[in-house]
Amino acid sequence: MTASSTSSSELPLASWARRLAPSAIQDMLQIITRPGVFSLALGLPAAELFPTEGMAEAAARVLAEQVGALQYSPTLEPLREQVVALMAKRGVRCSTSQVFLTTGAQQGLNLLTRLLLEPGQTVLLEDRVYSGFQQVLDPFQARRLTVRRDARTGLDLDGLASLLASGERPAFFYTMSDGHNPLGTSLAMDARERLVGLAREYRMPIIEDDAYGLLHYEEGGALPPLRSLDAQWVYYVGSFSKILAPALRVGWVVVPESLVFRLATVKESSDIDTATFTQRMVLSFLQSGKLEAHLTRLRGEYRLRRDTLLRALETHLPAGASWTKPTSGMFVWVELPEGSDTTVLLARALETQQVAFLPGQAFGVSGGRSASHGLRLNFSNCDPARIEEAVRRLGTVLRAA
Amino acid sequence: MTASSTSSSELPLASWARRLAPSAIQDMLQIITRPGVFSLALGLPAAELFPTEGMAEAAARVLAEQVGALQYSPTLEPLREQVVALMAKRGVRCSTSQVFLTTGAQQGLNLLTRLLLEPGQTVLLEDRVYSGFQQVLDPFQARRLTVRRDARTGLDLDGLASLLASGERPAFFYTMSDGHNPLGTSLAMDARERLVGLAREYRMPIIEDDAYGLLHYEEGGALPPLRSLDAQWVYYVGSFSKILAPALRVGWVVVPESLVFRLATVKESSDIDTATFTQRMVLSFLQSGKLEAHLTRLRGEYRLRRDTLLRALETHLPAGASWTKPTSGMFVWVELPEGSDTTVLLARALETQQVAFLPGQAFGVSGGRSASHGLRLNFSNCDPARIEEAVRRLGTVLRAA
Repeated sequence: MTASSTSSSELPLASWARRLAPSAIQDMLQIITRPGVFSLALGLPAAELFPTEGMAEAAARVLAEQVGALQYSPTLEPLREQVVALMAKRGVRCSTSQVFLTTGAQQGLNLLTRLLLEPGQTVLLEDRVYSGFQQVLDPFQARRLTVRRDARTGLDLDGLASLLASGERPAFFYTMSDGHNPLGTSLAMDARERLVGLAREYRMPIIEDDAYGLLHYEEGGALPPLRSLDAQWVYYVGSFSKILAPALRVGWVVVPESLVFRLATVKESSDIDTATFTQRMVLSFLQSGKLEAHLTRLRGEYRLRRDTLLRALETHLPAGASWTKPTSGMFVWVELPEGSDTTVLLARALETQQVAFLPGQAFGVSGGRSASHGLRLNFSNCDPARIEEAVRRLGTVLRAA
Repeated sequence: MTASSTSSSELPLASWARRLAPSAIQDMLQIITRPGVFSLALGLPAAELFPTEGMAEAAARVLAEQVGALQYSPTLEPLREQVVALMAKRGVRCSTSQVFLTTGAQQGLNLLTRLLLEPGQTVLLEDRVYSGFQQVLDPFQARRLTVRRDARTGLDLDGLASLLASGERPAFFYTMSDGHNPLGTSLAMDARERLVGLAREYRMPIIEDDAYGLLHYEEGGALPPLRSLDAQWVYYVGSFSKILAPALRVGWVVVPESLVFRLATVKESSDIDTATFTQRMVLSFLQSGKLEAHLTRLRGEYRLRRDTLLRALETHLPAGASWTKPTSGMFVWVELPEGSDTTVLLARALETQQVAFLPGQAFGVSGGRSASHGLRLNFSNCDPARIEEAVRRLGTVLRAA
């Protein structure tokens, strides 16, 4: 029996995999999640708001009534019908033949990237981007072009248009139109239209990550996503993780029908393209008609938490700080004066006030200098009193800085 | 709104993805799974033997007792402890720090391949191989070297040794030591030892797919897997799909500890490395102590079905056919005289006798000529009476051929 003490330089790995290091963020997460820390850091939904009872009923129903609930079986047509109905409420017309079920939104992003991207090709990203999407890109060693997504002025569409006009032909553009992670902002309607127009003109696919789009907090709901404006060039990624529960791992994509069998092939090689038990639970929950009331409750609670966070920022943050006012999603983005380094600040915040956030660097493209004076605050995972106290502590840290 | 009528030549896809075609096997599956067809084709476990009641209790228990059962959360240490205990019964000593939980065995295979294989590199396969593993390889455009895995004489270790001696340096060798899919055979002990010795000598990792190893039917159990002989060069892939239920999507790998954080990074980008609800169900079921009795029952039933299949082959198959006598797993491999084409035969079998199997071609490497006179029969998914009738019909087809 040989000891497993192989040092990493000896490992017979692909070169990119050999370079992987245990992430500093993982270490930080250990600290952030310590009891006693007031954390607005992680992008977690509120576990106490999960429809646990409805899900328990769904699980019992599925196991009692469905022969083969635990067996390999083809994609659940009735769940795809439920997704079509949900998409209609989001302002998107699509058919079940354009819906593909995934192991969460993350798998949707991963499978689409694998279909679209040749190793070494260029991708177009916003300059502050969901870090999990950068992880998807890593093995491809893709060239990353960025376009500014400003917390105040939104997406720099002039910059994007010039890039394309200059001859750049990225494999795709990745964006979140609503409840942007980490910025918390949503695109204006005219920006959506112009963006989709550019995608059409330059035949550039857009991967639209709408993980947060169904969590909207204003009268009249959210604007329709990019996919409502174009069914050919916008590939939509949705998820039940934030509106039902993450541990179910159920998401979907809406794509042109000709991509669906390709997604099926790639998914089959990833984790088998089979109807899962948790897909059946979600279906049964949706069929019980409980989603609408659950969403209403969730939006009400999260709206309250957002409002608490925004008021607390107003009260406790020193002059020179500014922040976004989200209409969807789970995040507020705070910007400190240029030159601030929120990674350094986080260490101090944890040490002196036991308060945590995610530093902007986590979201910057390729090292993240452009985002290093920003920080992300989550408002979904703490009750209002805790949010208030966390921001009071953050204010103390910032005033001492 | 644009119609999604993009023809595939216009799709902005990576070149390998553009070449994907809806698979002929998918079409065949449609036919095979028609009611009225006597099918020994698919590799399905028996749904009527799933521990459905135990799983329903586990689901209810988890949702009633565990705050955060549906939330994102770190890997379940207690489930990794249960895996360590299960591996001990399989003859493998390992620690929880070497166990990594996956979305089924397929994800284990996929993640390991992504870590080990540079695009364009060489991999070493047996000449009859689980088709889902070939799907994993497709996007890498790997060069596939094969070594003979003969239904009678086993793995051609002389051939393997010469390949390595001639200077070939594959990124890894993929194999199943027990209950081989599609052959149904298991490696002899001396073959295991020599194989592991070669892996050590040439520093060649072995991916050992043990999806079927816990389903063994002989007094004294199965031989220990390759991983029991070497902890450094053998990467073990296990699964609850065949011993509990596939729709739970819970599997694991056992690897040197230095690979675990790399697997975590790659899994995170694939579908988020979080404790899933179904992992918690499996854990709760295992903690209830019901696995051993369940496995005993499963082995008893499957042994009966295997014996029924082997007797029926003896009775109904014409001279010239030979077949394997599995001690583990779910499959028997039948070989017809050289020159037979079982793909052609399948069409005839469906048409004239409504009986189905999987033709050898599905398991041949790169097109599969070497396997085209073989066929795979599954014995886990039909009750004995149906197995008997299916083989009677198959015999009729073969005698008419």
